[in-house]
Amino acid sequence: MGGGLCGGGRRGHLGDYSGRMAIENSPTHFADRWFDLSEKRGGPVCVGIDPVYERLPDELRKHAADPADQVAAIEKFSLAVIESVADHVPMVKIQSACYERYWGPGVAAYHRVIAAAQAAGLLVIADAKRGDIGTSSAHYAAGLLDADALTINSYLGVDGMQPFIDAAAAQGRGLFVLVRTSNPGGDALQSLALQQGGTVAEHVGQMVADSGEAHCGESGYSLVGAVVGATKPADARLLRSIMPKQLFLVPGFGAQGGGAEDVRACFNDDGRGAIITASRSVIYAYASPSDGHWRDAIRDAAIDLTQQIAAIRG
Amino acid sequence: MGGGLCGGGRRGHLGDYSGRMAIENSPTHFADRWFDLSEKRGGPVCVGIDPVYERLPDELRKHAADPADQVAAIEKFSLAVIESVADHVPMVKIQSACYERYWGPGVAAYHRVIAAAQAAGLLVIADAKRGDIGTSSAHYAAGLLDADALTINSYLGVDGMQPFIDAAAAQGRGLFVLVRTSNPGGDALQSLALQQGGTVAEHVGQMVADSGEAHCGESGYSLVGAVVGATKPADARLLRSIMPKQLFLVPGFGAQGGGAEDVRACFNDDGRGAIITASRSVIYAYASPSDGHWRDAIRDAAIDLTQQIAAIRG
Repeated sequence: MGGGLCGGGRRGHLGDYSGRMAIENSPTHFADRWFDLSEKRGGPVCVGIDPVYERLPDELRKHAADPADQVAAIEKFSLAVIESVADHVPMVKIQSACYERYWGPGVAAYHRVIAAAQAAGLLVIADAKRGDIGTSSAHYAAGLLDADALTINSYLGVDGMQPFIDAAAAQGRGLFVLVRTSNPGGDALQSLALQQGGTVAEHVGQMVADSGEAHCGESGYSLVGAVVGATKPADARLLRSIMPKQLFLVPGFGAQGGGAEDVRACFNDDGRGAIITASRSVIYAYASPSDGHWRDAIRDAAIDLTQQIAAIRG
Repeated sequence: MGGGLCGGGRRGHLGDYSGRMAIENSPTHFADRWFDLSEKRGGPVCVGIDPVYERLPDELRKHAADPADQVAAIEKFSLAVIESVADHVPMVKIQSACYERYWGPGVAAYHRVIAAAQAAGLLVIADAKRGDIGTSSAHYAAGLLDADALTINSYLGVDGMQPFIDAAAAQGRGLFVLVRTSNPGGDALQSLALQQGGTVAEHVGQMVADSGEAHCGESGYSLVGAVVGATKPADARLLRSIMPKQLFLVPGFGAQGGGAEDVRACFNDDGRGAIITASRSVIYAYASPSDGHWRDAIRDAAIDLTQQIAAIRG
């Protein structure tokens, strides 16, 4: 069954991006690792890896009818993206759904891709959006916190989130709780006004702030962060005031329509605290699937992302 | 990579529990399959399979330090539960977190357990509580609807749910959307009162009812069901009035404290529409891990569950 089992090849830390070794009982705080690395390399950005077989370069797709070929192509592509962007950005976010659809072999590839990204010096978010009652949340945390951070869903309340927080705190990992998502339909539930004042998203934001309060690093930021889409600047400003100590993971820049104003609203007044994520605009930056220079296109798009965000931050 | 890849060994239907063969382009509606089978075998109950290595019978645990042994033990135990209960209940719900913590090998085992349960004539719910933006939801649906139904999370709104609904409708599968969970902390978000009236859970219930309206079977029930915990009878009655066409998947009976009154509130007035689930009280019914008759204890607990629910329904 090889090295794909958790508990087997699990490392205590993320490799050697800064030359430090993990200290077994006192891992470096996730937010501190983030600020350290993002200041050294590329600024507050993240490349989202959501590989879909049909959109991959032709040279990786040999036998479209064979699921094994699809998994192999997706893994090769993911590794190529990592190699192309690792010198230019501090973080990647890897969408679990794209791998899970291929069952065991896909999930084995997912964890190999996480490990490869860490070995390349990147911080890695497992974008799996898990959430369950406490016992099951503990199992999910055990399975997915090989990554440096994990996205989670808070609909089951704080007791469903707590096992994730406990596991992350023990291992120097981070969490990003879904608060305000960038999809058009996110409003349906998240924007509802509450009798007690505020919206559902603001209430979840308060839960996140409260849950994260005891888990701040030297940077002043908590290991419990929030997902706040880059398509609702007014909401982002309000959520910033509720969650000043949260890292915001901000999807929606680029392909989903988020622009400069949306991005600015996600940072604190000191210009810190947001992680701007672009996925499709980077990993599919090549002109067409037959473009032999697709690796260069991905690298250039990642560099362009860092420059765009630097310009927005001023 | 074998038969574990989706798209490879995928079947169009759930085997031959009732002697019918699947019709490729017109699968039998999930709710109709549920009523057909539950009336024949055991009534409206479901056994939850949440296997945790430390709680398994001694005879299955040989090398506790070896993750491969843990996966093998969990798979053997799951298959034994299936064999013990398949003649007595219509459905099992299998918790994905317990398998995912073992990465690729665990997920491969998960899908083998799903297939084994279907081969034994059971309807199977993949209890994975997935939810994401539309594209990723489509990938999750592709990966997890080998099961007959899937639990999902609606925090991202209707556009996040729609790919699950489309996939389920095309394949004769079902969904159970988290509405009101049985854990103590579920109140924190789900019970909040909205300015427009009602609570967050009631609003989600209305989203579920609306989303499911176009997808009712001959039974009058929709393929889009709801998770409603058995520990809040007043809420359950209210949610019943909002979602008369939804199957309610009702966890919390037994180990989590739900009793007869809680259960009754989850059925419609005609005594139909709820699926009462018990997990730990059935699968860990044996006196101790050294109990050599653990299979009998599980079978007896499943039979006892069907009798308790029959008595409550009167």
